[in-house]
Amino acid sequence: MNALAATRKHIELPDLSPVLERRVTVLGSTGSIGVSTLSVIAHAREIYGPQALPVEALTAQSNIDVLVEQARAIRPKLAVIGDETLFARLKDALAGTGIEIAAGRDAVIAAATRPSETVMVAIMGAAAIEPALAAIERGAIVALANKECVVAAGDVFRRAIARSGAQVIPVDSEHNAIFQVLNGGDAEEVERVTLTASGGPFREWSLAQMRAATPGQAVAHPNWAMGAKISVDSATLMNKGLELIEAYFLFALPPEKLAAIIHPQSVVHCLVSYADGSTLAHLSAPDMRTPIAHALAWPRRITSPSRRLDLAAVGQLTFQAPDHDRFRCLGLALDCLRMGGLAPTILNAANEIAVESFLGSHIGFLDIPRVVEETLNTAQRANAEADSLEGVLACDRRARALAGEICRRTG
Amino acid sequence: MNALAATRKHIELPDLSPVLERRVTVLGSTGSIGVSTLSVIAHAREIYGPQALPVEALTAQSNIDVLVEQARAIRPKLAVIGDETLFARLKDALAGTGIEIAAGRDAVIAAATRPSETVMVAIMGAAAIEPALAAIERGAIVALANKECVVAAGDVFRRAIARSGAQVIPVDSEHNAIFQVLNGGDAEEVERVTLTASGGPFREWSLAQMRAATPGQAVAHPNWAMGAKISVDSATLMNKGLELIEAYFLFALPPEKLAAIIHPQSVVHCLVSYADGSTLAHLSAPDMRTPIAHALAWPRRITSPSRRLDLAAVGQLTFQAPDHDRFRCLGLALDCLRMGGLAPTILNAANEIAVESFLGSHIGFLDIPRVVEETLNTAQRANAEADSLEGVLACDRRARALAGEICRRTG
Repeated sequence: MNALAATRKHIELPDLSPVLERRVTVLGSTGSIGVSTLSVIAHAREIYGPQALPVEALTAQSNIDVLVEQARAIRPKLAVIGDETLFARLKDALAGTGIEIAAGRDAVIAAATRPSETVMVAIMGAAAIEPALAAIERGAIVALANKECVVAAGDVFRRAIARSGAQVIPVDSEHNAIFQVLNGGDAEEVERVTLTASGGPFREWSLAQMRAATPGQAVAHPNWAMGAKISVDSATLMNKGLELIEAYFLFALPPEKLAAIIHPQSVVHCLVSYADGSTLAHLSAPDMRTPIAHALAWPRRITSPSRRLDLAAVGQLTFQAPDHDRFRCLGLALDCLRMGGLAPTILNAANEIAVESFLGSHIGFLDIPRVVEETLNTAQRANAEADSLEGVLACDRRARALAGEICRRTG
Repeated sequence: MNALAATRKHIELPDLSPVLERRVTVLGSTGSIGVSTLSVIAHAREIYGPQALPVEALTAQSNIDVLVEQARAIRPKLAVIGDETLFARLKDALAGTGIEIAAGRDAVIAAATRPSETVMVAIMGAAAIEPALAAIERGAIVALANKECVVAAGDVFRRAIARSGAQVIPVDSEHNAIFQVLNGGDAEEVERVTLTASGGPFREWSLAQMRAATPGQAVAHPNWAMGAKISVDSATLMNKGLELIEAYFLFALPPEKLAAIIHPQSVVHCLVSYADGSTLAHLSAPDMRTPIAHALAWPRRITSPSRRLDLAAVGQLTFQAPDHDRFRCLGLALDCLRMGGLAPTILNAANEIAVESFLGSHIGFLDIPRVVEETLNTAQRANAEADSLEGVLACDRRARALAGEICRRTG
């Protein structure tokens, strides 16, 4: 048989030039997502040539050594350090490279307004809100690796996106997965969007065990290496709750169509079920370079250095319904999703404070949902303020102060 | 908290009118796929109103009782019976209904040329080739539930589609799944398309056990109720081999990008892996009404009566690499895919004869790949003939005769 075999012609590589010519700004380049973004860009240059994905600007808050190293390797036009006291060191370190430099909070926001096609928002926490809005307001492709700003200021973001026509591409693995699966399709034909949750380190723990859980146990996430805050959110399932709220804002899905399922292997990231009985899903090895590469090349695909999924090697995927009794944060988030207005802002603020307090060993693990619930029950909510950034930020501050008080009383 | 809950507005049902007004012709309406198609249409009429999905024509080969019942319920303009000896009975049974009637092979082909927007080709085996081509040649949306004609005459189909601009939507669950996941996207950015196989009833059997397998054991498929021929193909994994060939023709994917994986639960139907590390998948409960509803409404989605997938209830999905030593048919199909030309035609013809011979207890289960391989090694192949329907049909006849001889010698 083999003597007769004729080789069929291979299909040529698609012309990716329009995508590869996009200038990229990376806000928060020295954090985990920022470092992965630069590795995707470096890989693209190896594969497609040194002109691929020119970098307009890199910004970092205080990690000057890594920023300098990145700037020398990736050659941005501009490097910004958020901490102004580090300006002189940055200047010295990049002298003679031709790279512009700047420092301070305003310089970080200004970096977002520079004329790049894509802005990767990899700054953590509420500090990302203003730079992300600056990029959205000028109509950029905004790769958003920050869920807090969508949860806290979702209505503000939605309005800004509607005004400018910016394209937001979520980089968070679950939301990037939903974005890929929906693929611009009609969300109205969707019956359900299910986000998967690993279940965290306490998936099989009893309530009594969880009551005594230490910060060290909570941050030991089984599948992903992440920061302490998000690891605790994963252990409480609040992370999934925040992601459901994020999905609500990003994809204009009604709350009753959003669900979560426990999937310990973290291989399937989302499931979108349609009216005809079809369910489309996104799977990958747990590697953030996959959603990053997707966001940088959308609507095309570039080759990434990500680990590839080998399902035969994985062997088994399991799924179970979440236990709302042991993981009360998920239910609190769903309540806030249904309430709308400023409830998600308060949820997010109270959770940040409660997690910080837990990480400092001031409150117990099971106190986290209690602090959040009490803050939600007590905080003033002028929901009309959810439409303005000032209103959201004021509510966020009030909720943090209140949650702090509750933590002190609890601890 | 609940006192403050505000209900958000639900999103309105999308306007599906253009899709629901499509006229549908069902070729082979009394077989399993035909019956399911009519149940999807009946369900759509319940949900969207009695005008939804008007039926232009129904055809059946010989099952006149079911055809009459279907015609009275679904009210096609035309009902055709392939077996001419049944013409008078059809005429009597539908007298006074206003439904046109016809009989004979040519009338079945003529039904495909009637002006419906969609033609469901649910005729089994090579008998579907001419009616399917008639529908393709007039540029219809062709929902194709027949893999043999694509495998046997793939190049002929590809040329006819290119000429007329017909849209072929595969209904076979795996190919419908690929169609949905690729979603018109760029196949060039695809690294791999993986079809799942249940592994059939002999997934865990030893070679010695398989050698003694009876037809009754081979047709006992674990997940799907199917005809005897396709059940045996599932037991040999030839079904997956034929599907890989079908995918090659339907999606213009190079052979080296096509793969199969064993997945006993038959929940995941395909996996499409991209250059950036993303894998998109299609999942559903094993219910053919899902791909049928998809094909009837594409590119929109209508509500189907299909069973919905409940992953928490399924609990576990497993995957393993196929064993080419025990399931040699898969390797033979992959060889034919790489050879191209008339090799797939011969493979398909020899397999049909070998399976028939096995079902008649003339040859053993492990003789099936032997007969196919010997036919492939012996049959004359003028590959230039793969481009013409006559060439394909002549090759098919020669291969069947040759395989029949080999079976007699083997038995």
